[in-house]
Amino acid sequence: MAEKLWQGRFEQPTNRMVEEYTASIHFDSRLYRYDIQGSIAHCRMLADCGIISHDEASLIVQGLGEILREIERGELKLEASQEDIHMAVEHRLMQKIGEVGGKLHTARSRNDQIALDMRLYMRDVIQHCRKLLVDVQESILVLVKQHLGVVMPGFTHLQHAQPVLLSHHLMAYYEMFGRDDERLAECHRRTNVMPLGSAALAGTTFPIDMERTARYLNFPKVIRNSIDAVSDRDFLIEFCAAAALVMAHVSRLAEELILWSSTEFGYVTMSDAFCTGSSIMPQKKNPDIPELMRGKTGRVYGNLMALLTLVKGLPLAYNRDLQEDKEAVFDTVDTVVQTLSVLSKLLPELRFDRERMKEMAAQGFTLATDLADYLVSRGVPFRKAHHVIGQLVQYCLQKDKDLRDCTVEELKQFHKAFDVDVFLLLDVATAVDQRLSQGGTATSRVEEAVQRAEAELAARKKALTNGANV
Amino acid sequence: MAEKLWQGRFEQPTNRMVEEYTASIHFDSRLYRYDIQGSIAHCRMLADCGIISHDEASLIVQGLGEILREIERGELKLEASQEDIHMAVEHRLMQKIGEVGGKLHTARSRNDQIALDMRLYMRDVIQHCRKLLVDVQESILVLVKQHLGVVMPGFTHLQHAQPVLLSHHLMAYYEMFGRDDERLAECHRRTNVMPLGSAALAGTTFPIDMERTARYLNFPKVIRNSIDAVSDRDFLIEFCAAAALVMAHVSRLAEELILWSSTEFGYVTMSDAFCTGSSIMPQKKNPDIPELMRGKTGRVYGNLMALLTLVKGLPLAYNRDLQEDKEAVFDTVDTVVQTLSVLSKLLPELRFDRERMKEMAAQGFTLATDLADYLVSRGVPFRKAHHVIGQLVQYCLQKDKDLRDCTVEELKQFHKAFDVDVFLLLDVATAVDQRLSQGGTATSRVEEAVQRAEAELAARKKALTNGANV
Amino acid sequence: MAEKLWQGRFEQPTNRMVEEYTASIHFDSRLYRYDIQGSIAHCRMLADCGIISHDEASLIVQGLGEILREIERGELKLEASQEDIHMAVEHRLMQKIGEVGGKLHTARSRNDQIALDMRLYMRDVIQHCRKLLVDVQESILVLVKQHLGVVMPGFTHLQHAQPVLLSHHLMAYYEMFGRDDERLAECHRRTNVMPLGSAALAGTTFPIDMERTARYLNFPKVIRNSIDAVSDRDFLIEFCAAAALVMAHVSRLAEELILWSSTEFGYVTMSDAFCTGSSIMPQKKNPDIPELMRGKTGRVYGNLMALLTLVKGLPLAYNRDLQEDKEAVFDTVDTVVQTLSVLSKLLPELRFDRERMKEMAAQGFTLATDLADYLVSRGVPFRKAHHVIGQLVQYCLQKDKDLRDCTVEELKQFHKAFDVDVFLLLDVATAVDQRLSQGGTATSRVEEAVQRAEAELAARKKALTNGANV
Amino acid sequence: MAEKLWQGRFEQPTNRMVEEYTASIHFDSRLYRYDIQGSIAHCRMLADCGIISHDEASLIVQGLGEILREIERGELKLEASQEDIHMAVEHRLMQKIGEVGGKLHTARSRNDQIALDMRLYMRDVIQHCRKLLVDVQESILVLVKQHLGVVMPGFTHLQHAQPVLLSHHLMAYYEMFGRDDERLAECHRRTNVMPLGSAALAGTTFPIDMERTARYLNFPKVIRNSIDAVSDRDFLIEFCAAAALVMAHVSRLAEELILWSSTEFGYVTMSDAFCTGSSIMPQKKNPDIPELMRGKTGRVYGNLMALLTLVKGLPLAYNRDLQEDKEAVFDTVDTVVQTLSVLSKLLPELRFDRERMKEMAAQGFTLATDLADYLVSRGVPFRKAHHVIGQLVQYCLQKDKDLRDCTVEELKQFHKAFDVDVFLLLDVATAVDQRLSQGGTATSRVEEAVQRAEAELAARKKALTNGANV
Repeated sequence: MAEKLWQGRFEQPTNRMVEEYTASIHFDSRLYRYDIQGSIAHCRMLADCGIISHDEASLIVQGLGEILREIERGELKLEASQEDIHMAVEHRLMQKIGEVGGKLHTARSRNDQIALDMRLYMRDVIQHCRKLLVDVQESILVLVKQHLGVVMPGFTHLQHAQPVLLSHHLMAYYEMFGRDDERLAECHRRTNVMPLGSAALAGTTFPIDMERTARYLNFPKVIRNSIDAVSDRDFLIEFCAAAALVMAHVSRLAEELILWSSTEFGYVTMSDAFCTGSSIMPQKKNPDIPELMRGKTGRVYGNLMALLTLVKGLPLAYNRDLQEDKEAVFDTVDTVVQTLSVLSKLLPELRFDRERMKEMAAQGFTLATDLADYLVSRGVPFRKAHHVIGQLVQYCLQKDKDLRDCTVEELKQFHKAFDVDVFLLLDVATAVDQRLSQGGTATSRVEEAVQRAEAELAARKKALTNGANV
Repeated sequence: MAEKLWQGRFEQPTNRMVEEYTASIHFDSRLYRYDIQGSIAHCRMLADCGIISHDEASLIVQGLGEILREIERGELKLEASQEDIHMAVEHRLMQKIGEVGGKLHTARSRNDQIALDMRLYMRDVIQHCRKLLVDVQESILVLVKQHLGVVMPGFTHLQHAQPVLLSHHLMAYYEMFGRDDERLAECHRRTNVMPLGSAALAGTTFPIDMERTARYLNFPKVIRNSIDAVSDRDFLIEFCAAAALVMAHVSRLAEELILWSSTEFGYVTMSDAFCTGSSIMPQKKNPDIPELMRGKTGRVYGNLMALLTLVKGLPLAYNRDLQEDKEAVFDTVDTVVQTLSVLSKLLPELRFDRERMKEMAAQGFTLATDLADYLVSRGVPFRKAHHVIGQLVQYCLQKDKDLRDCTVEELKQFHKAFDVDVFLLLDVATAVDQRLSQGGTATSRVEEAVQRAEAELAARKKALTNGANV
Repeated sequence: MAEKLWQGRFEQPTNRMVEEYTASIHFDSRLYRYDIQGSIAHCRMLADCGIISHDEASLIVQGLGEILREIERGELKLEASQEDIHMAVEHRLMQKIGEVGGKLHTARSRNDQIALDMRLYMRDVIQHCRKLLVDVQESILVLVKQHLGVVMPGFTHLQHAQPVLLSHHLMAYYEMFGRDDERLAECHRRTNVMPLGSAALAGTTFPIDMERTARYLNFPKVIRNSIDAVSDRDFLIEFCAAAALVMAHVSRLAEELILWSSTEFGYVTMSDAFCTGSSIMPQKKNPDIPELMRGKTGRVYGNLMALLTLVKGLPLAYNRDLQEDKEAVFDTVDTVVQTLSVLSKLLPELRFDRERMKEMAAQGFTLATDLADYLVSRGVPFRKAHHVIGQLVQYCLQKDKDLRDCTVEELKQFHKAFDVDVFLLLDVATAVDQRLSQGGTATSRVEEAVQRAEAELAARKKALTNGANV
Repeated sequence: MAEKLWQGRFEQPTNRMVEEYTASIHFDSRLYRYDIQGSIAHCRMLADCGIISHDEASLIVQGLGEILREIERGELKLEASQEDIHMAVEHRLMQKIGEVGGKLHTARSRNDQIALDMRLYMRDVIQHCRKLLVDVQESILVLVKQHLGVVMPGFTHLQHAQPVLLSHHLMAYYEMFGRDDERLAECHRRTNVMPLGSAALAGTTFPIDMERTARYLNFPKVIRNSIDAVSDRDFLIEFCAAAALVMAHVSRLAEELILWSSTEFGYVTMSDAFCTGSSIMPQKKNPDIPELMRGKTGRVYGNLMALLTLVKGLPLAYNRDLQEDKEAVFDTVDTVVQTLSVLSKLLPELRFDRERMKEMAAQGFTLATDLADYLVSRGVPFRKAHHVIGQLVQYCLQKDKDLRDCTVEELKQFHKAFDVDVFLLLDVATAVDQRLSQGGTATSRVEEAVQRAEAELAARKKALTNGANV
């Protein structure tokens, strides 16, 4: 067991059970790269400001570089007795370079150090998620373009409402994921702020230069209040809230894929490579992936709730409760990253049954609104037209026939404004292409949307590649 | 009981219990002003596009204006049998102007209508919340300036850590509420998009002009996908997430006010007008307001969770589940608006006991870090210095004395680098003013922060007054 | 504005905004009957113990009775300035009978009074919910008996798995609601404990007899620790957790009703009286009730989360935060009561399409497991048999044929153990009735379950009617 | 990569990314012991019923026993390609004993197998948690007995209310943890039901004997509906809800320990072995353990929310979403087990400052209620007495004196009923011992409570040791 670096004031060693209860090394070791990167920048700044000598800085930076490699090669054993990644690294540094290693922690505290590590980590994570969102949106666009002419029933209340293009339906998800990207980009801006030098909570007496540390680490801004710097976890909660919406969107898409894969719907099949079987029923091919996606929504919601509970009523500044932020965030990150990765691979594997979808598009009187609109175009107030067609549908249900099976004479019994030209409307493709309003399902509108989306994605990809936060 | 406007297709009337279970009029009547405002814009657009005549439009607009006044005067009775605010208004319109009123619902559906109403409502609500945040931040600044020289113990783990300025501590809250404003402003941008004309889910066959409706209602943008338009509730969830963080911040401040009001802390008292008494204990004066603020955090978190649960796994497009979004949002709005209003009034009523705070600032060895830094400035590696001071503290605890009660000789026993000049440091005001790092607690740094904050608030207030979304 | 009953120690009157922020009268007035009932019992006990005179008690009890009637007739105006129901009643009492009314609050505090009121209220509410669960379970049994022979596809992963009886499927919900009843009964036991006399937190110096108060109010037990008495909200949270599971079960049933009502499934229709229509699409008949049930799950989950957040980290004993418990509980109560009431009425209105269900029961190779079991009964290890049938299904898919369309020769190509008797198994009714294991779907097993359920419900109803807590 | 045991029907192998997304082996391997235990019981039952031969059963049982030992010795490598613990064990079994191993999965499915494993696991876990609750309650009793005479201020609103015994305050927590035990015991009863043989969802065609399996596994009951058996997760959610209340209680106690450890309160110190230090501030000794306990409340709440979200709107029967139940449950189990273990060790390490507590007990006019009660005992109505003492407190505040510093003459100015005997009451110990009402803070009452608690704990411990579910 390593002696604690803060042991000076203590008479008794830490209880073993306490050590395990309080240790974070088993999860915060994930941050090792960021921790070392931050220490190197801090060390250089200390030397630049004359707080330590350049020779000392060289020794320290070199030692830190070696530790990084040791960890990456799996040579450094990280144990509970070392408490956390910061102490583990500092401890190893002092083993390597002796007492001079003890100069690294000048003008900082673990409180601002962990704030820095998490901000460095989240900066990367957020941009990675944004790239994965681009992949998902690109996969959607592939499907959209591939199926541009395919008509399906549009649903409200899971009832057939009006015919729409499958592509139009899919583009609704494109929009959702687009908003997710915006939220993540904004969260990135609030994450991308440099806290190191805030020390325990009050700032430091050493003549440090935080702008310089920020430049070394490519931060555009330095934090403005040292107490806030060490007690703020907004950027983590905000990320988890944005992630909850990402998963909400994924869960809606997943639900539809599950429904559409059912025997009853029969709209879509997934390739074998994206399904699994049953241990008892030999015929089963299950949509496990979308089911898991839908299920994983729960854990991401739960993590958000965990973090909100955590900070409720917490006095300033740092409290040890805050250590509990990490696992919830890491689990959210892993879930979202894995889910978006799999989703962008799954989408191109969908095989839609176009015939089935088209056939169903006409069922359930989905053209009734078009008939009402027809009457309106002949001067009937909409509310009246709606009532007339409602009764016509009721009549058809009783006669067990479809709207297009009615004769003009039958129609005229419901309203005299009906004429033979009405039958031109009773076609799902026509119905779709007549919905030309902005954002409507007409093919031309969807084509327009695709073009806009392609331009948008291209620009976003480019910016993300360049490291910009658009 | 009013006949339902969609009754045409139905054989049986709605069951009374069902009517009550499904009605939303008892809560969505709150939206009446926005509903009518949206209908007027829609009606004007219909006439502009030649879908209805200008005479018809005049009649409708006039009728809607009268209904607005009737509601405001409390003359229009809104009942469960009218289902919702849309139907109640349309029903009354047809009572007033007859069948021509039935033309208003041309080229729209309740699905896009409620999306519009909620966006109009939330636009206002968000800007109102932002103004209240400005008020709170101004109240903080008043306190900050009033108490600029007051030293208090800075806390970590609720233990005395280092002395800080009370003003510096309060400025941490200024920062939190500033981030809240950013999130609300961004949410406003995503809310401020015009959905009307998306109709049920697919757009409409009528030659409407959604840009025109948008202009009438002062929306900068029209929604891009009609299915998304009627099924998206992101803007509500995002608001509730931002509100959850607002309340998290309020709860932290409330916790501190409760702690500081205790006999043991004795840091602050609130004026009688902001406290209440006990029914049994005559001496009690309780900090009810901060307690309720802390407690109300729960309902705002709960509302967020309610909405996230609501949309989980919901297939497209509109489902009746979505009606359940309103009460959670309204309750969140009311809670945040009331809480921020009360908070900005409460803060100026705080009376701090400066003497008590200063006295406590020195207790608990809060200058130990300064002693360690002193050794570092004499070449001792920080980690070594930390250990030395830890042992010194341990020694003082055993001797039941404070650091400043030690002689130089005693100090030298712990490290030879100590000299008489060390006593210059053992003063809380000095300790504070030496923390000159960016964002640190030194008086000059806090003054800087105040100036920046004043400029910022002035700019934000001006922009909000001008209706801009900064 | 009424003067506060605790005003003695205060110099300034309460700020109006504060009064509104802290008042609970607009929601706790719901408790008036319980508050008065509790006061009457308390008053009688005080007289029994000689703490007040019997004449004083008579005056007070009579006054309270009149106030009860005034409230029930809507004659008593309850206002924010009266803070809460306790103060409103006491205030009115003193208006009616003068200073002697001030003796009622002897030996109690609002802290134990509200604990009592909520326990009295919840006792009733829980038993009411339990009766509603009986109603729902009875409605399920009606359907179960009505459709005893109806075969449908059993689902896993929303894929056809094996044929089951519709009645067996419905009995799964019977079981769920049965567990809900158990949880509520247990919560009732923990609610049914008498706290009055715990006073503010420490008990009282007056020689009261809490057992006597308990007897007057029909409580089997008196609370054991006065601090716990005024700070415990477990019974409310436990109720909300039980309610969350009730709603989870309802949401699963609702989801199925929505799916089954779709054109694609076509398994069920609801009567017009339990559906609503569309404002734009004349043909629509929407399953609004199950959709709202599913949606309302969110608010009940949210209320649970609100309460858990509320009590997190709250020091003992009473804190004003706890006032926030009521609205979450009341909303949960209203939602569960309304939902269960509507559900028990909705179920008998379901019309199942038995032909459609039976037809679908055979689709999707649902008898594949039976074929595997057939091979096992001829000595083939299950895992091997499973593999063989898997390949057979694959073969059928390629040939686009069903299992029963295969010849014996074809079957033998997959495994030599097949013989002509296998065709006897390829019938959904046979498949169902062969699943004779305990709790299995065979008709005889389901009949057994129905009998047990009928006996169980009869016993439970009787006990609930007798006021017992079974 | 192992070939999947259900591969027969599939043309393509599983995508590697899919394999990782769907695998549960990395967390459900925790269940290995229960999985093998269940398989052995199942196998024995199959042989008893003549479904497999006794020789085959011997081979299988022996193989399973070896696999158990291999896993315990860390010799069996569990990989993602094996999907889950069930498949991993079966796969290894067939490696060991060949095709006969394929007979084990007769008459069961993974759906009922995982239901069994989780019920076996939770049965143990719940009883373990109940034992830990006994430990915590015993630790509380140790403190209670040790400090029986110690007076402290009782708090409401974190303000001094009335003096109470520290032991009485601690006994409130004894009560809370007692209720937790009841909830867990009830959850145990609903968990302790045997589902194996429900197969995929419909039961099985094999002539199994589920009562026999239940006896082998020591279950008192067999599940009553096979569909419910594979889709029910109530017992897990109920456990997580009970755990949330456990943590709520712990968080309240933790909050108090943190407050009481502050310099301002100074009521308690923890031994060095249960505290940690600061990386920057040499003097710090932080109450990390209670802080982490309070923080960990969040994750347990979040896990509950995750599970509730998971099951919302899920159609019957098994869906893959349900696989996501495990990690939330395991994390809850680990957190509660670790927290209760540490808590029962931490409590005896608390050192209370009795002098400080007693001194503070008199501050803040905590005897004001006793004065009011004094007046009541002289015939003044309580409400009047309350008002009088309120004014007296106000007077003392202005004069900056305490109640006991007033002369009889001064008191008489406020009410003529005051006399010299009133001073006998102005003593905190007297005030405490006069609160003799049931559950009150008088020493005799607390002694009574201790005796009852000791008997209760002894009985509970004995029953838990005997394996009974009291």
